[in-house]
Amino acid sequence: MTDTLPITERTRLRRGHKRGDFNRETINAILDAMPMCHIGYVLDGSPQVMPTFQWREGNHVYWHASSAGRGIGAAGNQDVCMTVSLLDGLVLARSAMHHSANFRSVMIFGKPTKITDPDEKAQKLGNLIDALYPGRNALLRPMTAQENKATAVLSLPIEEASAKIRSGGPVDDDEDYSLPIWAGVVPVKMQLLPVEADPRNLDGVEIPDHIQDIKIG
Amino acid sequence: MTDTLPITERTRLRRGHKRGDFNRETINAILDAMPMCHIGYVLDGSPQVMPTFQWREGNHVYWHASSAGRGIGAAGNQDVCMTVSLLDGLVLARSAMHHSANFRSVMIFGKPTKITDPDEKAQKLGNLIDALYPGRNALLRPMTAQENKATAVLSLPIEEASAKIRSGGPVDDDEDYSLPIWAGVVPVKMQLLPVEADPRNLDGVEIPDHIQDIKIG
Repeated sequence: MTDTLPITERTRLRRGHKRGDFNRETINAILDAMPMCHIGYVLDGSPQVMPTFQWREGNHVYWHASSAGRGIGAAGNQDVCMTVSLLDGLVLARSAMHHSANFRSVMIFGKPTKITDPDEKAQKLGNLIDALYPGRNALLRPMTAQENKATAVLSLPIEEASAKIRSGGPVDDDEDYSLPIWAGVVPVKMQLLPVEADPRNLDGVEIPDHIQDIKIG
Repeated sequence: MTDTLPITERTRLRRGHKRGDFNRETINAILDAMPMCHIGYVLDGSPQVMPTFQWREGNHVYWHASSAGRGIGAAGNQDVCMTVSLLDGLVLARSAMHHSANFRSVMIFGKPTKITDPDEKAQKLGNLIDALYPGRNALLRPMTAQENKATAVLSLPIEEASAKIRSGGPVDDDEDYSLPIWAGVVPVKMQLLPVEADPRNLDGVEIPDHIQDIKIG
């Protein structure tokens, strides 16, 4: 079993190919660092880019949506592109041309599969909760049959995928280093702020430990 | 002149329509809060979602790319969808179903125009620098003709667009409020960290004021 994905016409990087990475561990680490993703699909001939949450299990990514949403119908048996991006910094150089951004991103291409078995769907939706908040799903009010029916779960194999990463400081043209222009990086980080408890929480209900286990960024 | 955009087949919200907003001020505020965007286009029949930076001037958004990149050719005279998303919080409810995220997002549909006049292009690329770092462009080494040629600038009118926003705490089913389950919000915020100066900056070159003017989030 190889840990490196094959390069395809869709995942081959035309630009900045030195920043491309087809290693499964690199791809997985980016997917695991950022639940928010953007899913592109074609609806009536027109591209649509929808923000939603993804979670990973092994070599598949999953997302969910309302069964009545318009993206679900279009996604069945049609190609999608899931992109996950983290902005890590603003890179200021000595010329406009060499300004850049530090980032980590993954693109995954393929035809998603809709999970139709209710038990499997319930399991997957529990995994979504636990991916964000480890152990939380077991503490929740169980899902009803109606909720299960109202929710669609889609899966996509991580087979045709690539990562792209930029890190580090500005890279200027040799002759520009003699200019008295400030260059550097402004790092950017997604931070979790102190929790805001629901005022309707029952007396004595404590903040659960899984709040400390949230990992984003 | 109206400040509210017309609702089209592409921008009409099927799900969560109470969260939709077609007001230009709402849309502009989201675009101005987050330079990172995801652009969806169709290439060889397959959707592609590319992360890049956008900036706004009046009722248009702009982005740039390498003239040799594959997205540029596909974008000319073809529909794109630009989506800008900010994650504002994780919403933990008493049932899996009512878990959610607080967010602000904008989708813009249309056919982008490529800016071909070199002077206009140079002006726009300067505006990109100044949109992120007000006043910085005038301090930089001027753009060369070759750099100008190597860079494509695309513009899209903000005419067919919508915003979608969720904020506030969890909204649970009435009967679930009696359960001893902690619910609440974990706010999420993109933070700028202390700058990392390029070690090759000349002695005496100070951090410019425009670093203090960066606004993200």
